[in-house]
Amino acid sequence: MAKEKEGWDLDRKLEEYAREDFYPFHMPGHKRNPVIFPNPYTIDITEIEGFDDLHRPKGILKEAQERAARLYRSEKSYYLVNGSTCGILTAVSAAVPPNGKLLMARNGHKSVYHAAYLRGLSTAYVNPCMTDFGILGAVNTEEIRRCLEKEPEIQAVIITSPTYEGVVSDIAAIAELVHGFGIPLIVDEAHGAHLGFHGSFPETALHLGADVVVQSMHKVLPSLTQTALLHLNSEYISPESIERYLDIYETSSPSYVLMSSMEKCICMLQEKREELFETYDMRLKSFYRKAEEFSKLHIMRKKDFSKREIFDLDISKIVISAKHTNLTGSDLEKKLREEYHLQMEMYSGFYVLGMTGIMDRKEGFERLYHALKEIDERISYVEEAREDTRQLIRALYTLKEKKMEMYEAMNLPVQTIPLKQAQGKISADMISLYPPGIPILLPGEIIDADFIKNIQKSLKIRLNLQGNADIINERINIVKI
Amino acid sequence: MAKEKEGWDLDRKLEEYAREDFYPFHMPGHKRNPVIFPNPYTIDITEIEGFDDLHRPKGILKEAQERAARLYRSEKSYYLVNGSTCGILTAVSAAVPPNGKLLMARNGHKSVYHAAYLRGLSTAYVNPCMTDFGILGAVNTEEIRRCLEKEPEIQAVIITSPTYEGVVSDIAAIAELVHGFGIPLIVDEAHGAHLGFHGSFPETALHLGADVVVQSMHKVLPSLTQTALLHLNSEYISPESIERYLDIYETSSPSYVLMSSMEKCICMLQEKREELFETYDMRLKSFYRKAEEFSKLHIMRKKDFSKREIFDLDISKIVISAKHTNLTGSDLEKKLREEYHLQMEMYSGFYVLGMTGIMDRKEGFERLYHALKEIDERISYVEEAREDTRQLIRALYTLKEKKMEMYEAMNLPVQTIPLKQAQGKISADMISLYPPGIPILLPGEIIDADFIKNIQKSLKIRLNLQGNADIINERINIVKI
Repeated sequence: MAKEKEGWDLDRKLEEYAREDFYPFHMPGHKRNPVIFPNPYTIDITEIEGFDDLHRPKGILKEAQERAARLYRSEKSYYLVNGSTCGILTAVSAAVPPNGKLLMARNGHKSVYHAAYLRGLSTAYVNPCMTDFGILGAVNTEEIRRCLEKEPEIQAVIITSPTYEGVVSDIAAIAELVHGFGIPLIVDEAHGAHLGFHGSFPETALHLGADVVVQSMHKVLPSLTQTALLHLNSEYISPESIERYLDIYETSSPSYVLMSSMEKCICMLQEKREELFETYDMRLKSFYRKAEEFSKLHIMRKKDFSKREIFDLDISKIVISAKHTNLTGSDLEKKLREEYHLQMEMYSGFYVLGMTGIMDRKEGFERLYHALKEIDERISYVEEAREDTRQLIRALYTLKEKKMEMYEAMNLPVQTIPLKQAQGKISADMISLYPPGIPILLPGEIIDADFIKNIQKSLKIRLNLQGNADIINERINIVKI
Repeated sequence: MAKEKEGWDLDRKLEEYAREDFYPFHMPGHKRNPVIFPNPYTIDITEIEGFDDLHRPKGILKEAQERAARLYRSEKSYYLVNGSTCGILTAVSAAVPPNGKLLMARNGHKSVYHAAYLRGLSTAYVNPCMTDFGILGAVNTEEIRRCLEKEPEIQAVIITSPTYEGVVSDIAAIAELVHGFGIPLIVDEAHGAHLGFHGSFPETALHLGADVVVQSMHKVLPSLTQTALLHLNSEYISPESIERYLDIYETSSPSYVLMSSMEKCICMLQEKREELFETYDMRLKSFYRKAEEFSKLHIMRKKDFSKREIFDLDISKIVISAKHTNLTGSDLEKKLREEYHLQMEMYSGFYVLGMTGIMDRKEGFERLYHALKEIDERISYVEEAREDTRQLIRALYTLKEKKMEMYEAMNLPVQTIPLKQAQGKISADMISLYPPGIPILLPGEIIDADFIKNIQKSLKIRLNLQGNADIINERINIVKI
C-alpha cells in the first residue's frame, strides 16, 4: 500500500512541473497561465435542466456556438470536445460517401488517414514540395488540378494549412479550383485558430472559400487541451450531415469543463483580441528583429523560401535552424531545456520548433532570445554538410506504387518479416518520419528496392522512423495474401 | 459589445449553479464535491519530455493504466478521454471485422448502433424483456442461445448491464454461452464502474467472463465527465486491435486534466475504497429502509421483479415509482427540483431516477428522504390505471421486420413523408422512446400498420419519441429506392 501511494505520479508530476520555472514554447496556447477558473469539479455537470445538450443544442450551448461563428465569421461553428481529430473524421465522413474517393495532401494528420480507413475510401495523394530550406512546403495548386482532371471520381479534397511549421498553401486558389470541379475543400487548420485576427498573420481558410475548416483551440489559443472548432461554410456539405457524424465520433457526455474553457476563450477574443494581438505581434516582431543578429543559428522567415515553395508563413511558429552549426536539432532542444528551462514543442534533424501565441509573456520571448544569443556565441559555424540527408528525405517522401487501397490492406491478415526480404511485398504498415509524422509508406503500397535501401540509410543516421512493426529493427508488416 | 458581454452565459450559469443549494442526484459521480485540484490551466500540458503519450504509453501513463488494471483486476485497462462512447466504438471495431455480424441487445447505447454503422455490420438483436414493474428487464440468456444457434455467422455479442435503471443480466451464464460459440462478449458497463468493490452491489462483468468491459468513470465515481475505462480480458481480442481503434476514435491531444482526474479517482479507490463503500452502503440502506414507510410512492427493489425478469439489481440507482399516485414522473421530478432543489438524473412516464455514489453526502440522502416523505403525505393513492400504456410500450418495443441492414439504409438517399403514408416503406430514421432512448424502429426496418397506429397512440398520450425527422408532427424519413 505504501508503495502504491508513491503512485500518485501523474498528479504529483504535473503539480510539481507547474511550480518549476520551465517556460512553455509548446501547446497548449494558454501557456499554463492560470486563467481565472473555478475548481473544475464544482462546474462539471451533465445535461440537466437549463444546461442544454451539445448534441441537440437549443439554449446556452447553441448561443455559445453562435458566438464562435460570429467571432470567426462562419456560417456555422461547432464546439468539439474530442479535439480536431473528431472534426476531421466528421468532415471527411460528411463530404465523401462510403467507398467514395478522396484527394488528400500526403502530409495529413493521422485522423485523415483514419477517416479514409473507416469509410473505406479510395485515396489519391498530392505531395507537398520539399523546400530547399529542408521542411515541407505548400501544396501546389496545379498538382491538385492535375489530380482532379485525371481522377474525376474524386469527391472531396483535404489539405493541411498551416502545417506544424507554419507553411500556408494558396487556399483561395485551391478553393476556387476545387469548387470548379463541383466538390468541397476541407482544410485542416488545427494549427491556425489564431489566423484572421491580425494583419501579421495569414488569413484563415474560412474566409478564403474552404467548405469545412477544423481548428484546434488549444494549440495556439488559451483553451484547454482537447478543445477544437469545426466551421462550416458550404454549398456542398449540410449541417445535418456534420451533426450526424459529430454525434458518432464524439462522446455523448461532453465535458462542461472543456466547453466552459472554450467559451472563456471565445469571449476573451471577442472583447480583447485587438489589444491581445497587438501586444503579441509587437513582442514577436521584436524577437524576430533581434534574432537577425545571430551569426550561426537562423530563425526561419518567409524570405527563406521561393514563391513556388510556400504561399505564406505563419510567424507564430518560431523555427530555429541549426543547420549551419555544429549542433543537431536534438542538441539544441536539449540545451534549451536543460540549461535554460525552455521547453520547446519539437525538434527535427536540424531545427527546433517553438510555438507562441497571444498568451506568451514578454519574459518568454526574452528568455528565448537570451538563451539563443548565448548559444549562438558558443557554437561554431559549419558549412552545411547535410545535402545527403535532404536528398534522402526527399527520396523517402516519394509516393509509392499503390497495389490496393489502404482500407483493404488494413482489413487483411498481417505477417511480420525482415525488411530486407520485403521487396515487392504489399505493406500492412504505415511508416512515418517523425517529426512531422508524415507517412512515407502506407498499407496497400508496394515495398520497393529503393524504399528498403533508403530506410536502411535512414536508420544509420538515426532518423526517427515510426511504424506498426519494429521498423527500427528492420522488421516490417506485410499483407498476407 | 456590451450586449455580447452578457454572453458569458455558460460560464456564469455554471458558476452560479455551483453556488446554489441544488443537490445533484445525477452524474457526474463526484457530485460537485470540490476534490482538491489545482487550477486546470496550470497542469494542462501536452506530450512533453517526461509526461508520456496516451497513444504510446511507456512511462507515467502506462503506470497509471496498470494501476487501474490492478484495482479492477483486469489484464489490461485503458484510460479513455472521449467517454464510454469511444470505448464501445473500439470494442465493436476490434471484435468484428468490417461487414461482419454482431448480436446486440436492442437497448444498446447509440454508440453500439454507430459502431455497427461505421463498420458496415449486419446486426441481430435480442430484446430485453419488459417487466411487469414497467421498466426493461435483463437480457435472456436462452434468447441469446437461440440467436447464436440460428445465425452461426455472428462474430461477437454486446449487451448493456447494468442498465440506466440498474438492471443486471446474468453475465456469467451469457459469457460461458457466448464463449461456447467461440466468440467474445462485450459488456457496456457504463453505469457500473463501482461494481465489484462491495458486497452490496452486483459483481462487475469483468470478473464474470466478459472479454471487454467499458465503464464510464464519471457516471458513478468521482472523476470528471467524459472519462472512462476500457478493460480487456480476452482470448479473442488482442490489445493491439484495441489500441488500433482507440488511436482512431480518440483525440491525438488527450487532456491531462481529464487523465489527472482519472488517476486521482483510481488512487482514492485504491486507498480508501473499503471505508468509502462502507459509509455509502450504510447511508443507502438506511434510505431504502426508511423509504419503506412511504404509502403511495414506491422505491424500486429487487423483490419487485421475478427471477425471469432480472438477474440482479444495482441499488445505487434510486428509482422512485409514482405509479400508484396522482403524479406522473414528470410531476414528481418537477416537485423535487423546484420545491426541494433536488436535481434528479431523469424521469419517465411513472418514475424518477436518482443516481447515487460514494461521494454522496449524508445531507443528500436525508434531503431526498424528507422531500419524498412530505410529497408522499400530500398526494393520493390511485389504483394503477396505466395497463394500456404498458401494453403500448411493449408493442412499441416489438422487433420490426428488417428489409436491409441499418448501415445500408443510412447510406441511401432519404425522403420525408407523412407517417400515415409510410406503411410498407423502409425507415431511414432511428426512432427512440426516451428515456431510456432505446430504438423502436431502425433504418432499414419496415414501417408496418401496427407501428403507425402505436406511434399515433404514443403521441396522443405524449410519450417522448425522438427521431431524425419530425416524428412528433407525424412525419418520418424513409429510404428512397
